[in-house]
Amino acid sequence: MPTYKAPTREQKFLLHEVLELSRFSELDSFKEADPEMIDAILEESAKFAEEVLTPLNRVGDEHGCVRNDDGSVTTPPGFHEAFTQMRENGWMGLSADPKYGGQGLPGILGMACGEMTSSANMAFTMYPGLTGGASKAISIGGSDTQKDLYLPKMYTGEWTGTMNLTESHCGTDLGLLKTKAVPQKDGTYKITGEKIFISAGDHEMSDNIIHLVLARIEGGPEGVKGISLFIVPKFKVDADGNVGETNGVTCGSLEEKMGIHGNSTCVMNFDDAVGELIGVEHKGLRVMFVMMNEARMGVGMQGLCQSEVSYQNAVIYANDRLQGRSLTGVKNEAGPADPIIVHPDVRRMLMDARAFNEGGRAFLYWLALQEDLEKHSPDEKVRERADDFLGLMTPVIKGYLTDKGFENCVNAQQVYGGHGYIEEWGMSQFVRDARIAQIYEGTNGIQALDLVGRKLARNGGRALMSVSAEIDAFVKENEGDENLKPFMDGLADAKNKLQTGTMWLMQNGMSNPDNAGAGSVDYMHMMGLAMLSYMWARMAKVAQAKIDAGTDDPFYADKIITGKYFVARMLPQIDAHLAKLQSGAEPVMALAADRF
Amino acid sequence: MPTYKAPTREQKFLLHEVLELSRFSELDSFKEADPEMIDAILEESAKFAEEVLTPLNRVGDEHGCVRNDDGSVTTPPGFHEAFTQMRENGWMGLSADPKYGGQGLPGILGMACGEMTSSANMAFTMYPGLTGGASKAISIGGSDTQKDLYLPKMYTGEWTGTMNLTESHCGTDLGLLKTKAVPQKDGTYKITGEKIFISAGDHEMSDNIIHLVLARIEGGPEGVKGISLFIVPKFKVDADGNVGETNGVTCGSLEEKMGIHGNSTCVMNFDDAVGELIGVEHKGLRVMFVMMNEARMGVGMQGLCQSEVSYQNAVIYANDRLQGRSLTGVKNEAGPADPIIVHPDVRRMLMDARAFNEGGRAFLYWLALQEDLEKHSPDEKVRERADDFLGLMTPVIKGYLTDKGFENCVNAQQVYGGHGYIEEWGMSQFVRDARIAQIYEGTNGIQALDLVGRKLARNGGRALMSVSAEIDAFVKENEGDENLKPFMDGLADAKNKLQTGTMWLMQNGMSNPDNAGAGSVDYMHMMGLAMLSYMWARMAKVAQAKIDAGTDDPFYADKIITGKYFVARMLPQIDAHLAKLQSGAEPVMALAADRF
Repeated sequence: MPTYKAPTREQKFLLHEVLELSRFSELDSFKEADPEMIDAILEESAKFAEEVLTPLNRVGDEHGCVRNDDGSVTTPPGFHEAFTQMRENGWMGLSADPKYGGQGLPGILGMACGEMTSSANMAFTMYPGLTGGASKAISIGGSDTQKDLYLPKMYTGEWTGTMNLTESHCGTDLGLLKTKAVPQKDGTYKITGEKIFISAGDHEMSDNIIHLVLARIEGGPEGVKGISLFIVPKFKVDADGNVGETNGVTCGSLEEKMGIHGNSTCVMNFDDAVGELIGVEHKGLRVMFVMMNEARMGVGMQGLCQSEVSYQNAVIYANDRLQGRSLTGVKNEAGPADPIIVHPDVRRMLMDARAFNEGGRAFLYWLALQEDLEKHSPDEKVRERADDFLGLMTPVIKGYLTDKGFENCVNAQQVYGGHGYIEEWGMSQFVRDARIAQIYEGTNGIQALDLVGRKLARNGGRALMSVSAEIDAFVKENEGDENLKPFMDGLADAKNKLQTGTMWLMQNGMSNPDNAGAGSVDYMHMMGLAMLSYMWARMAKVAQAKIDAGTDDPFYADKIITGKYFVARMLPQIDAHLAKLQSGAEPVMALAADRF
Repeated sequence: MPTYKAPTREQKFLLHEVLELSRFSELDSFKEADPEMIDAILEESAKFAEEVLTPLNRVGDEHGCVRNDDGSVTTPPGFHEAFTQMRENGWMGLSADPKYGGQGLPGILGMACGEMTSSANMAFTMYPGLTGGASKAISIGGSDTQKDLYLPKMYTGEWTGTMNLTESHCGTDLGLLKTKAVPQKDGTYKITGEKIFISAGDHEMSDNIIHLVLARIEGGPEGVKGISLFIVPKFKVDADGNVGETNGVTCGSLEEKMGIHGNSTCVMNFDDAVGELIGVEHKGLRVMFVMMNEARMGVGMQGLCQSEVSYQNAVIYANDRLQGRSLTGVKNEAGPADPIIVHPDVRRMLMDARAFNEGGRAFLYWLALQEDLEKHSPDEKVRERADDFLGLMTPVIKGYLTDKGFENCVNAQQVYGGHGYIEEWGMSQFVRDARIAQIYEGTNGIQALDLVGRKLARNGGRALMSVSAEIDAFVKENEGDENLKPFMDGLADAKNKLQTGTMWLMQNGMSNPDNAGAGSVDYMHMMGLAMLSYMWARMAKVAQAKIDAGTDDPFYADKIITGKYFVARMLPQIDAHLAKLQSGAEPVMALAADRF
């Protein structure tokens, strides 16, 4: 049975030492979040993740969800109780708006807690995760009445939420959607259509489920210009928030998936269900996109989470499993063989994951902090800059962290040899669960296209210029420090290569947009590598300062070792990405479609 | 439901035009195999794979195998009938020794047929595959009596076979194995122990199952020097080959695996089972290693197969699925959206797979041909050279083809978006099935270690020098041809980088063997890339000659396009591997084992 130990030491290092949250203690959501409180919350969340959610992860995979004869859906054994506990302990409203009953703590702290629950049990954490997405949409686009009615109960978890976008013939291309909304005299709409792949679509864990549904109002414009967003509760709700009769929303069937079996992925049927419009008619996608940006950060986190938990288990196995002898002489005289962690290739797989996990977590938390700054900073310049970073980096977080996260799960499974392929050991589940994160909330190819086709050029490329300037200044500031030289050299090199790639895209994407499309995924990975270089350089600086000051905590020396591994063994990948990118669209597009 | 169309056009191109089998028509096994016969066999095998085995692939995944209350094992519905058909049509003995009832056709032809059945149904094809492995071991190490008794019935498939190596505490490190063999007065042995992960370990499809079992003879030397190989039939066999009573061999349980559900992976219990020694006491591993080399080529093939079949389905989906519009303008005016094959990033994934499949198939068939030459050539020099190539390249075929094959399955699944994650579409199965090929028959890390630690240096590095000389000559011979320039430049560059990597390993692996270990997987991939460059250059040469001669078959122009894609977009990866390799063991080994 796989285990999970929340990486609170790593988290504290990032929050307190690298990102220095105490710098922001004047900001609204940070006022109460002093270091002691942050640490206490992390420890509590760790306990819940380790003790309650971790043991349910295999259970969820094995049992899956069940659609009963009456059409209702039951989650795996133990899920309901765990959800009640999560709810009652107030975890769902941790960084939600206090105006609607949230605790108003920083989003970055919510992200840290989410990391723990999602590492422990990805399928479970999607129930509160989707609720967060749905409440986000209401908070962005809803009226005051809607916010008053729905948000408080969603922040406590009494009600959960879902996002209903996809139909069988339309995923990425929402302009094709057919679900229709017919206006009623009382200002509501009747919603009819079928949605697929609806995570947490139905279950027994909450008193109501608030579906956010994209639909086309009858007679509205075709394509993406005629899509509106509706609130469609499972049970009708009166003005006082009392739950009433059912509302023409049913789960038609459960999808049989490769993984995340513990989450109920439903085909949802809407049959004249009563819906309330959110915001303006035909402008539903605006709200949806803002919400989706946040959801994408959550999916990037899932990539990191599965990488972290599978790494932890692979380390345990590599230290336990005796097989063969070290190439440099026996290491375990007393045993019949050495633990496989002595073998360089096993190390390579573990170090790849470790260097990614620590660097990726820094990148993720750094971006989560931008969201807090964008919301709460009194300084308009800071807010603008944070918003720039969020726009540019969200697709990278989503695409890069999930691609590499999956790869690391596969490697962690590989460490187990044949046992990794047997379900009982749990490594297969990590691989199967992690796989979805590369696909949903916009496939990673879509993320890359969003990056090169939209985000990169926004405001004249201001966001990337801003990151580059920050990196340049950081390199310059530290160029005298001999101990940091490998990190600064690696970072400067990565930044230059990213710049070369950017220039190439700008020069060649105009004449032929397929040049940008063909290099988009490579470019996204280049930016991921460059940002991890930056994060590693920042972490190394903090660690080196501690070492210079004479710390005897080996944590800091390990940090330097792991960072050097990143620079030596992972960063070289950026050259291959650049070469592929620069080869352009021609080789990719040359074969006629009917000759494949 | 996924489909499969056997790539007979590709196969004929390789066999007739690139490898020119007609050159070998004087050799024993090639005498009868004239082009017409080869083509007829390919077409028959294609029909069997497409019509009989393909529809059973999902069935096998869904139903899996069942262990009945009496301990017997039943394969999925339809498997038994298909196996009977395969058997009766003589497919199992296609390239087996005519002396024991085989048809004596070239091994490369058997490989081509095996590719088709394994693409159509990997789990099914493992039953005949394992039988081939077991009969191979008997043919290498068995006495004439044993060969006479077992081989004919295994070549017809009346009896099947298995390989029993792994125990729960020992996979790679066979020296640790505990299964014991107690000598009996009549010259037989009583075998007792538990083996795990035994593919095709028990089932109802054949009259007997011939287990090849590694065990330690009581009182023999410890470690790998005391391991012997035994024949242990499921049912005892008399001197005339009559099947008698059961023999103390039972399936204790079936493993619950990530994939290949249609194959019965058994825990096998041996309880005083009667076994016959193969070859010499304590020298069992010799026979096993010869056999394993061949089995590893078969596993490499599985990587290619799953890549091929998942690619084919992704192409169909990419041409069918309408979503979004081309970046360069609408391509499907009549439809609501363009087929997703217009999108460069979808193309990238398809072309990656295509260029790998065609290059990988050439590499695999080239190596299969070496095996035929090694067996049948009257020229000692040719045999020696073929044996060199087999030794050096087998771990590359196994490791590189399965690593990349898996990656391509993941990409093909990605082309399907959310539908790829739903089991019904079948793409998940390709990923789950392909995953095992990176693990079994020696993990890919073990393949890489075998390559750099053993095969590379054998006979003073003669094998690699020989390949390099062949490549140099080929490049020189074609350097005047402007049309082939990208291929020759790519090949020369790849060869030089491989050489640089080899030199680095030689110079640094002596002082610290961990330097070789840390770079071994990168080196294996470099060699894979270099060999695919060579194969692409050879295929391009043939195709270009046809084009120069005025062919109007678009097959040849497509070949050039696909090959150019390989050079432009896949080969650059070799630089990243070289850089990682050259960073050496230090970054990999620096972290203390207890600090992970």
